[in-house]
Amino acid sequence: MVSKKDIKLISSLKHKKFRDLNSAFVVEGIKSISEFLISQFKLVKLFSIDCSAFDFVTNQIEVDYNELKKISFFNNPDDHLAIFEIPNKNPVDHNNLIIALESIRDPGNLGTIIRTCEWFGIKDVICSNDSVDCFNPKVIQSAMGSLSRMNVNYVDLNSYLKNTKLDLIGATLNGKSIYKTDLQFDKGILIFGNEANGVSDKLCDVLDYNLTIPRSGINDFPDSLNLSISVGIFLGEIKRKIFSD
Amino acid sequence: MVSKKDIKLISSLKHKKFRDLNSAFVVEGIKSISEFLISQFKLVKLFSIDCSAFDFVTNQIEVDYNELKKISFFNNPDDHLAIFEIPNKNPVDHNNLIIALESIRDPGNLGTIIRTCEWFGIKDVICSNDSVDCFNPKVIQSAMGSLSRMNVNYVDLNSYLKNTKLDLIGATLNGKSIYKTDLQFDKGILIFGNEANGVSDKLCDVLDYNLTIPRSGINDFPDSLNLSISVGIFLGEIKRKIFSD
Repeated sequence: MVSKKDIKLISSLKHKKFRDLNSAFVVEGIKSISEFLISQFKLVKLFSIDCSAFDFVTNQIEVDYNELKKISFFNNPDDHLAIFEIPNKNPVDHNNLIIALESIRDPGNLGTIIRTCEWFGIKDVICSNDSVDCFNPKVIQSAMGSLSRMNVNYVDLNSYLKNTKLDLIGATLNGKSIYKTDLQFDKGILIFGNEANGVSDKLCDVLDYNLTIPRSGINDFPDSLNLSISVGIFLGEIKRKIFSD
Repeated sequence: MVSKKDIKLISSLKHKKFRDLNSAFVVEGIKSISEFLISQFKLVKLFSIDCSAFDFVTNQIEVDYNELKKISFFNNPDDHLAIFEIPNKNPVDHNNLIIALESIRDPGNLGTIIRTCEWFGIKDVICSNDSVDCFNPKVIQSAMGSLSRMNVNYVDLNSYLKNTKLDLIGATLNGKSIYKTDLQFDKGILIFGNEANGVSDKLCDVLDYNLTIPRSGINDFPDSLNLSISVGIFLGEIKRKIFSD
């Protein structure tokens, strides 16, 4: 049975302020919870309709469907809901390609980007401080477990990029075609801007490379690609070299 | 002012059954509505907080924010909401590359795929009959106007693919690497499966090419890429030839 205290805590974890205050966040669904359980993340408490699914977990509370529906952030909850501790961040590994996101707003995009990054072997995502929180429930949901293995840091992106010696590659709408550039980047920072405004002028000023996915439609629509699609195409194109050798 | 009849009609258009019954669907937001207005789609009625934005539209009703909030499908409605007629479908153009989607469920994915397809010059998307409806409000939202220029047909995909002479290229998890294949497809049908299950065995049996975006991460995670990301990477890779020549 879920206590009133737990209900209050879980409900508060919908909001970043309370996630920070409690150093905790919520993961839902058997697949994601399984992946967080075998990661570095530390479980606080698990609420299950069917405790046998995670019978090795001691800190587990059996609940019925109505209780789960009460604590879940989704309309159709899966059978399990877990609270995990927010861990300390690891330092960024500068020997690999890093993805930087400026003022990203859409949690679904951030989650999908984290999942895509993992597919392509990226270990570090850095976000500007005003970006959506990576422990937002919708990020967790769309990252499908990949967040448990990705190092996501929040930084003053402007000053971070000014102070690094790594190659800075920006994804913009007016750069050189990625298909006419030899994208041999096994390190460096690949920078994507906000969904509506793209990479800001301030950050454009510090780029070493300004690259674009060319549009091949016959008219001037759409204005742009979805942000996570752009990340996928850039990473595919950068990694292509490895696979086609 | 919005009439009770209009409120009832708009609310019903959230559901496919009533969209089909009324041959109508809802578009929200100035950008998408603008694009539908200059397309082949026929406006039924426009509800605006600021009528001057579309002063050329005669069939327009001025509303206040509270009225708009009442009829909008979203929590934070934009200033305009329009009802458009569902048009007759155009036949599929077999002289271009066509995207086929099997049992796609997520409206956000379908919308993003339609937007991505337009970016890469695709004109036709065909969906299996059990796929999410392209006039679903979330599809319209994530397609960002691109649906107004895309020909989306719903078919018995199995029999459609069996009866075509076009090349059938399937995106699966166990095919040949797209980076080791010469993707010279200016026509043919590129087939993507359901979010959870991929291309079904039935459809796999009729494929001419079985292709995969290879994973470059060090472990076996994630299981797969998001569906719309896969479409983006496949299209980028197919179109790369055009741009790099």
